[in-house]
Amino acid sequence: MSAKEATSTVPVSVDRLTKRLETLSTFTEPGKPWQRTAFSSLHLAAREWLRAEMQALDLDTHIDAGGNLIGRLHGTSNGLAPLASGSHSDTVPSGGRFDGALGVIAALEVVSALRDAGYRLRHPFEVIDFLAEEPNQYGLSCIGSRAMAGELTAENLGVTAPDGTTLAEGIRLMGGDPDKLTTPLRRHGDMAGFVEIHIEQGRVLESAEEDIGVVTAIVGITRIAVDIEGRADHSGATPMGLRKDALVAASKMIAAFEAQAKQEFYSPMVATVGKLEVFPNASNVIPGKVAFVLEIRSGQPKTLAQYQKWADWTIRDVAGEQGVSARTRILGKSDAVAMDTDLQLAISDAASAAGLKYRSMPSGAGHDAAHVALFAPAGMIFIPCLDGRSHCPEEFCTPEQIAKGVQNLVDAIIALDARD
Amino acid sequence: MSAKEATSTVPVSVDRLTKRLETLSTFTEPGKPWQRTAFSSLHLAAREWLRAEMQALDLDTHIDAGGNLIGRLHGTSNGLAPLASGSHSDTVPSGGRFDGALGVIAALEVVSALRDAGYRLRHPFEVIDFLAEEPNQYGLSCIGSRAMAGELTAENLGVTAPDGTTLAEGIRLMGGDPDKLTTPLRRHGDMAGFVEIHIEQGRVLESAEEDIGVVTAIVGITRIAVDIEGRADHSGATPMGLRKDALVAASKMIAAFEAQAKQEFYSPMVATVGKLEVFPNASNVIPGKVAFVLEIRSGQPKTLAQYQKWADWTIRDVAGEQGVSARTRILGKSDAVAMDTDLQLAISDAASAAGLKYRSMPSGAGHDAAHVALFAPAGMIFIPCLDGRSHCPEEFCTPEQIAKGVQNLVDAIIALDARD
Repeated sequence: MSAKEATSTVPVSVDRLTKRLETLSTFTEPGKPWQRTAFSSLHLAAREWLRAEMQALDLDTHIDAGGNLIGRLHGTSNGLAPLASGSHSDTVPSGGRFDGALGVIAALEVVSALRDAGYRLRHPFEVIDFLAEEPNQYGLSCIGSRAMAGELTAENLGVTAPDGTTLAEGIRLMGGDPDKLTTPLRRHGDMAGFVEIHIEQGRVLESAEEDIGVVTAIVGITRIAVDIEGRADHSGATPMGLRKDALVAASKMIAAFEAQAKQEFYSPMVATVGKLEVFPNASNVIPGKVAFVLEIRSGQPKTLAQYQKWADWTIRDVAGEQGVSARTRILGKSDAVAMDTDLQLAISDAASAAGLKYRSMPSGAGHDAAHVALFAPAGMIFIPCLDGRSHCPEEFCTPEQIAKGVQNLVDAIIALDARD
Repeated sequence: MSAKEATSTVPVSVDRLTKRLETLSTFTEPGKPWQRTAFSSLHLAAREWLRAEMQALDLDTHIDAGGNLIGRLHGTSNGLAPLASGSHSDTVPSGGRFDGALGVIAALEVVSALRDAGYRLRHPFEVIDFLAEEPNQYGLSCIGSRAMAGELTAENLGVTAPDGTTLAEGIRLMGGDPDKLTTPLRRHGDMAGFVEIHIEQGRVLESAEEDIGVVTAIVGITRIAVDIEGRADHSGATPMGLRKDALVAASKMIAAFEAQAKQEFYSPMVATVGKLEVFPNASNVIPGKVAFVLEIRSGQPKTLAQYQKWADWTIRDVAGEQGVSARTRILGKSDAVAMDTDLQLAISDAASAAGLKYRSMPSGAGHDAAHVALFAPAGMIFIPCLDGRSHCPEEFCTPEQIAKGVQNLVDAIIALDARD
């Protein structure tokens, strides 16, 4: 059965999706499309519009203590915990029109499509616009979903932005109540399932000409600072054999990191040295010091641990061969979060039934779903985006790609709703 | 015959050498030892002292149009062109007490030792303090020796320092006459031979426990700017196989540069990447661009050309394999300057006769002798220095190392003087 032949019980409207995405994108800094940073007046205005859209669909709306905007559709069995979908309406500076926005508009479309089809869910259904998923002036991302899971600490809430306000004040500005964030807003059992749709932000689906990525896990990230100490000698007066070149040592490490990360038995994982500095950084001085950050990501905690162990060994080994010293220091470590297996099945079964091409894949970037997963079964649907571009104005998905993904979301929600 | 048993006809005085070096080192910026930058009032004061030392030895002194301070000892055959020795009295900021200073004080010692021994040279002998050998506010090194060789252009003389003065004005301040620098101050035949003694500024002699380096050539230097253009993708969302990582490409090139420069058939040469920058340089972004400078140095023009050709090929090859693009651009190219063969022999024969351990070696750094070599037979004597340190306050040679080197200089000058 091809995608064209597939007909859902509850079909989505590509026109409505496109129109709502376009309207949301108009809430942007003039001259800096597309910029709607969290806590800005544009962000507040966009949420006013979203709330009006929710109310036009007869959803009960409220902003929770974490500053999350929530629209609730009643189900036929109101004793059941709600199913939910959503993402975030804030953007990075000079970002795109799809990252976050798509997930919120898609959740609205679930409600619109159900309404058009006269289909009633047993479970209540929540459309959620999480507060401030992107990095922002308080230096913390996923603020709303962290608040929901009870992850925000007093220290987090006290962090001050360059404008002098605290995160607690920022949350209050957006309609939340920071005083109530000392305990989780939701606990196990409070949500029957959560599915977030998002653009892939990479080129895997596009390269393979696939429609849907069924997210298996949101990767764990380990960042290791590596300082190589050699000797800053005169480049002319020091023969090759007497050198302690910190950059040659770093280069051999970086080449090894890449080769190892490509090994099949570690797959899928990625290792990146994105940040590197050379000292004193003059063309006629042998580098005496190089500082770089090795970042490794994997959906498999075991893979992360194994690679880190190997990298430590390799750093020591190369340093020894090159006659330099190396110090490593863990800068940060976040655990991989597995997506719920039943939800992955519901998404892939729905994709299969609709004749869509899909693959299981980890998400290399962080998402609100990773925090929701701490208290509820969570899943994610990825759709392809043009050339992997994201966090930039060129971010793009075709209406057809969007329609296939959102249809998959609707179908998965209906399937989940039917479960005992 | 060991060094201790060797007795020269004209022995040097280690006390006098040490005392003069100490006195010259007192002309330093208070609190920033050892700093006597060219064109400063300290530099002028130091030269006044040097001129007085020359005059105390009955040398005829003058400052030539290029600002070089010259003391001339008459020979017994005044129709002969002079032999000469010297170096420079300026230092880099926070430099050492030996770089340059040793060569000037050693040339003075030649005169003192001859005088003590009652030994008269046939040739006139010149003690030269070249103007401004180190990089300075006019952005050009070896100003005095370039002027002598006729290398200074009208453009060079017009260069402006941050204080608004031109190089021409700087030369005039130091006693020179920039209006007379349109033609060389010395031409072929105007100098019978020039020998400069200098600290090695590397660890070759110290590592091998040798006393004397007989310089074969002052290396040619080629600097190549390499720009690698990849793709700045999200480090989490881009699998290893879909990356165009500019830093991985640069790392493979740098490792290859080092391995190739170590190959015996290119020896002796050095290749250095001392300057490298990564863009955008964030730990979660795959490097989209890397810019670095490859510097290669060799005393053999053919080696330089061969390595450059190989490097061009390797850069293209690695870029191709990594799916990135690479552009190269020659930033600067200076030719290798061979030292005179007869002078090399005179130096090594004198070392041999004195029971000193010596080796032939290229100079990886530039020196005044490279410019003198354009109009006269020129040679250089290197002596070991502590741990290769130079251009820093820790720069050091023992009185014994100095005495051996200066004795070698005196003996070589006497040998050259005896030639037909």
